[in-house]
Amino acid sequence: MTTANPSKVVALSGGIGGAKLALGLSRIVPSEDLTVIANTGDDFEHLGLLISPDIDTLKYTLAGLDNRELGWGRCDESWNFMAALREVGGDDWFNLGDRDLAIHVERTRRRAGGERLTTITQDIAVALGVKPRILPMSDDNVRTFVESDQGRLPFQDYFVRLKCAPIVKALEFVGAESSKPSKEVEAALSDRDLRAVIICPSNPLISIEPILAVPGIRVALANCTAPVIAVSPIIGGRAIKGPTAKMLDELGIGATAVAVADRYQDLLDGYVVEGDDYEDCVAAGYPFAIEQAETIMKSLDDRENLARTVLSIADNIRSQQTLQSRAVS
Amino acid sequence: MTTANPSKVVALSGGIGGAKLALGLSRIVPSEDLTVIANTGDDFEHLGLLISPDIDTLKYTLAGLDNRELGWGRCDESWNFMAALREVGGDDWFNLGDRDLAIHVERTRRRAGGERLTTITQDIAVALGVKPRILPMSDDNVRTFVESDQGRLPFQDYFVRLKCAPIVKALEFVGAESSKPSKEVEAALSDRDLRAVIICPSNPLISIEPILAVPGIRVALANCTAPVIAVSPIIGGRAIKGPTAKMLDELGIGATAVAVADRYQDLLDGYVVEGDDYEDCVAAGYPFAIEQAETIMKSLDDRENLARTVLSIADNIRSQQTLQSRAVS
Repeated sequence: MTTANPSKVVALSGGIGGAKLALGLSRIVPSEDLTVIANTGDDFEHLGLLISPDIDTLKYTLAGLDNRELGWGRCDESWNFMAALREVGGDDWFNLGDRDLAIHVERTRRRAGGERLTTITQDIAVALGVKPRILPMSDDNVRTFVESDQGRLPFQDYFVRLKCAPIVKALEFVGAESSKPSKEVEAALSDRDLRAVIICPSNPLISIEPILAVPGIRVALANCTAPVIAVSPIIGGRAIKGPTAKMLDELGIGATAVAVADRYQDLLDGYVVEGDDYEDCVAAGYPFAIEQAETIMKSLDDRENLARTVLSIADNIRSQQTLQSRAVS
Repeated sequence: MTTANPSKVVALSGGIGGAKLALGLSRIVPSEDLTVIANTGDDFEHLGLLISPDIDTLKYTLAGLDNRELGWGRCDESWNFMAALREVGGDDWFNLGDRDLAIHVERTRRRAGGERLTTITQDIAVALGVKPRILPMSDDNVRTFVESDQGRLPFQDYFVRLKCAPIVKALEFVGAESSKPSKEVEAALSDRDLRAVIICPSNPLISIEPILAVPGIRVALANCTAPVIAVSPIIGGRAIKGPTAKMLDELGIGATAVAVADRYQDLLDGYVVEGDDYEDCVAAGYPFAIEQAETIMKSLDDRENLARTVLSIADNIRSQQTLQSRAVS
């Protein structure tokens, strides 16, 4: 049995793009009701430090500490560590701000001490003033690798060092098969009080699918009591940000809203797209609702409006399902 | 056989106090002729990083990058890492500046990769613009522990966290017995072209004696072809800086220039003291030369003058020894 007016919202998110909608959700959903499950497939070890880019982007965004000038990293940041590291010949292709660095050092120290990434993430998020809960998809290491025309590359080598220039032939989520969702992720997805699961407009290939590759999560989403709604990261054949369109093209999937819907179709109750993509998706004849909305989030209002729209779509779907199930019974 | 006009100078040094004389030496000895052997007994692992305080103080001082306002650490430093670390509840008793941190991260990464501390130290020093050679006393870990009225403490816990407040009962150099001097240290001390070995006015107990505790170094000093000259870190019963006097008192050694000379007496050809300490040392009847000089180094000129005095004392002793050996033969 689901509760009559379920309150809990779970969002699946990668970094920048997903965090925008997560921020919108955080402004209209009570903090204690919102959980964001974060991709850790692009976590990596660098300079001896454990770096979790998507978790940190979510933390900084939800704490209002994101760097809006740069569009990534932390606000009020300084770069003296990088300057000094460069001076002594250290690896400088991945920029680590002085403040940001503290998070990596503390996380690495606690992980080395045997603590779970979930616990560490929660403690740091609380300390930074994050109100909703951010959960790593798993406490186990899952690492995305890119098979490319320049060989097999750890994700951040492809993404940051080589600036997404290599042509992608395949993606691999090393460690995914033997990974487990944390008990917190399992509990969030099987909560009877679940109002909606939102798949944020993140890159499906490298942000959402690593989450879905953790055994049990895909099934948990398919079986959860709430509507699952995805927002397309592709609008009119283009990605708003990042290499999503380029990767979809190179893998022969096609950079269309329909192609993204295909990736999620076993999971969805609703799919939110913008502009002409609506007709294409309707024409595709999916067994789930296609909804139209403004999905480009430039302002804080845009983020909040999309969050409101997505939740209202979920609520509508749930009430229709309830009516249908009453009609059947 | 020694060479007629030997040119090489080796200094043994801890951090701040010793680095002052090392800087003075570096201004009058050609860079290629000066080697500073640094104490690594107060190295420690903190936040997952390998920190080598004395090596870094020497690097920064000899590169002109020392922080003269603070009296420790690196110039043009910022503290955003520490502020962010404090915010997330990290260990904040040991201050790590943003630029300084880069040295620790790079050293830790390279040590973890199996490189020797000697090689890493040399590369970083060169990159920072240090001209003389800085050699860790050993590539093996030696760690100073303080037996105190508050229990057995790792050195930096005693020194920084507890601000030298505990009463010292004994000192232990863990790992010293099984450590080896590096081949570079061995070569420096057995060089036939050695002009002088200078024991800088560092704390004998925690800066110089860990160096002497590395098997082979004490014997190499006793057997080396050059005069060994120590500068007393105690003047009129007081230490110029740091806990030297307090520690000598607590251990019942006594905070006097004579008590320090006693620690080194098997090694010395000359001992440099200031003021009334001269009479005391002469009265002690040591079999080595006692010399008087201004040993407090406030200005750069003071550093250079003391370095010049110490080298001239060494040169005098060597020519007398040469005369004596000619008289004997």
